[in-house]
Amino acid sequence: MPDARPQPYRDPAHPKKGDPVFDLHVGGKMEVTSAPLRGREDLSLAYTPGVALVCSAIAEDPSLTQHYTWVPNTVAVVTDGTAVLGLGDIGPAAAMPVMEGKAVLFKQFGGVDGVPICLDTTDADEIIETVARLAPSFGGINLEDISAPRCFEIEDRLKERLDIPVFHDDQHGTAVVALAALENALKLTGRKHAETRVVISGAGAAGVAIAKILIEAGISDLAVTDRKGVVHSGRDDLTPVKKALAEITADRCGRTGSLSEALDGADVYLGVSGGTIPEEDVARMATEAIIFAMANPTPEVHPDVAHKYARVVATGRSDFPNQINNVLAFPGIFRGALDVQATGITEGMKLAAANALADLVGDQLSEEYVIPDPFDPRVPGAVSDAVAAAARAEGVARR
Amino acid sequence: MPDARPQPYRDPAHPKKGDPVFDLHVGGKMEVTSAPLRGREDLSLAYTPGVALVCSAIAEDPSLTQHYTWVPNTVAVVTDGTAVLGLGDIGPAAAMPVMEGKAVLFKQFGGVDGVPICLDTTDADEIIETVARLAPSFGGINLEDISAPRCFEIEDRLKERLDIPVFHDDQHGTAVVALAALENALKLTGRKHAETRVVISGAGAAGVAIAKILIEAGISDLAVTDRKGVVHSGRDDLTPVKKALAEITADRCGRTGSLSEALDGADVYLGVSGGTIPEEDVARMATEAIIFAMANPTPEVHPDVAHKYARVVATGRSDFPNQINNVLAFPGIFRGALDVQATGITEGMKLAAANALADLVGDQLSEEYVIPDPFDPRVPGAVSDAVAAAARAEGVARR
Repeated sequence: MPDARPQPYRDPAHPKKGDPVFDLHVGGKMEVTSAPLRGREDLSLAYTPGVALVCSAIAEDPSLTQHYTWVPNTVAVVTDGTAVLGLGDIGPAAAMPVMEGKAVLFKQFGGVDGVPICLDTTDADEIIETVARLAPSFGGINLEDISAPRCFEIEDRLKERLDIPVFHDDQHGTAVVALAALENALKLTGRKHAETRVVISGAGAAGVAIAKILIEAGISDLAVTDRKGVVHSGRDDLTPVKKALAEITADRCGRTGSLSEALDGADVYLGVSGGTIPEEDVARMATEAIIFAMANPTPEVHPDVAHKYARVVATGRSDFPNQINNVLAFPGIFRGALDVQATGITEGMKLAAANALADLVGDQLSEEYVIPDPFDPRVPGAVSDAVAAAARAEGVARR
Repeated sequence: MPDARPQPYRDPAHPKKGDPVFDLHVGGKMEVTSAPLRGREDLSLAYTPGVALVCSAIAEDPSLTQHYTWVPNTVAVVTDGTAVLGLGDIGPAAAMPVMEGKAVLFKQFGGVDGVPICLDTTDADEIIETVARLAPSFGGINLEDISAPRCFEIEDRLKERLDIPVFHDDQHGTAVVALAALENALKLTGRKHAETRVVISGAGAAGVAIAKILIEAGISDLAVTDRKGVVHSGRDDLTPVKKALAEITADRCGRTGSLSEALDGADVYLGVSGGTIPEEDVARMATEAIIFAMANPTPEVHPDVAHKYARVVATGRSDFPNQINNVLAFPGIFRGALDVQATGITEGMKLAAANALADLVGDQLSEEYVIPDPFDPRVPGAVSDAVAAAARAEGVARR
């Protein structure tokens, strides 16, 4: 049987020819594949009339979807294009290359089939309705690059409404990896969670989620800052999300004032805000400080500066040691959740993922190695096993 | 670089083990693939920081989506699960195996990346809204197995709203292939379009679309029947869709009465209704009649019966000659439309597809061969070339 497949149109003289990034992107980064049908017999099994048997069986027993469709291994990678990388609100069409990239990473590191969905609406209600209507087609929903504060409401309401995993990676992926690296940094510097003072700059998706997971992990002295300083209930300009954040962070440990003031004597600085921290503020942190300056491409504190004052330094970049990269978390988290057909992704599953990541460093722990490399082949399996076990332990696994 | 990909969970003892149809369906029929990232450098081109360049470029010039994403080669295969094969309203989850099958055919025969989307709503407005919001993610929309009359409104309104091809395959795919076969059957029996009397049983999606394309092709003596007989304006029970259908078919040639009466002396019978035509009705058709009994799995007239009275017989089945199979049309139609970035699929493009299919039969034309075989390797290219040329001729091509 000759391959009858016509090839898609590709412009050999594409507009950005010669740039390695654009050359790699010609035609997009992904495709749909399947075993070829070799003739009438294959066609009659995979399509009519055979396929009708599978449809009828699922209509009678919906659980068979888990066996005989691709649904249980798929994740919709959903964005509205409002907070794409550091580029901001560039719209759904321009967000597609990131969503395709995410799908590539889902497959390579998690064996998960990711489907990019870029939505032509930024209305929270419409996004929620749309995703809920798509839900029968997917085993999970990965929300991506949706701006705060809508991202919180969208995730919360979809989690409530759907019985499949819903996960906003910009929040929880970042939080899981940051926590994993922090656990090892605390170990290295001999700090106890209850005695560690943490400052997070950035009260958006990542900042809020990091704060929450640190609290789950036992950190209690914690302040989050936005452009106006520490987020605390004494301020009269807080959104509902920031008000709730203040109550579980700065209010509990009595922190107020500017970021500069908050850093005075702090053990840990976690940056997810962008901007630049003045060197004199870094200098006033505690000895053997821990600095994770995660903004991309420009860290809030350059590693050369950070190293003058801190013992452990991490960034979001691949050209420095200790890269805080979400790819360490989301493929394994979804792999584990899908494998046990979890109804959602709980706090316990995220903590388990962070601990599994931290544990992989093991005896090799050093200032330059608090978090595994994204290409460490042990990572996806370790994370997915831990997540699946946590799902079972927490009673959200369906198999 | 070892492949770090964890494998999806598969139950080796799946419930229907041993049935070849179900064995083939384990894990679904399709997956997402991409070139592997071999290390940090690949990662920095396909994902951050490199991908940001592509996003920024598209934000500045949206036409670059056509070069640097998978969007221009993708088609959403959208259903609400209300009219799946002959099974009826079995819901979105149970429809998935058909949508996956369609995606498999799209790729194998058209090189098109099909993404199955099974919607958890049957409300026409909600379906339209949802698909419109998804549109930035896809190069085209293939509507599938949506029941009449909603399918007409959904397609019409989406065509109006979107600037990408929207195509309801149950209507137009069937119509294109039926017309192609009919053109050759008319040639074989020496009939002229204007002097040929046609009866279609079934006034649903396929019947309406076949009627319309036959009129475009020059057939004027045409009656469509539903369960109550010929659809004509003298009836007081017609839906708006059937009223409009009556006005362009039976009303123009003055046909009324029962299906049995309509068949009396008819040259052509096209069945898309299911049910069975009594042999005595078949016997009263014109000499050298043409019978396409397309219901699956049970044709309206069994070929053994039809052959007693008709010169050309076709069915929807692969185990008889002259199979009217949509797979002859939709992959090439979308391939051609996507290749020229058409803003829609016009009547002219459908006629061009039908003519290209009919022409492939060429000198080999016989009673047993009025339409090419679905696995004829010439089919997709011939259809896509004809469709692309028609799109250019009609001014709907963007390149």
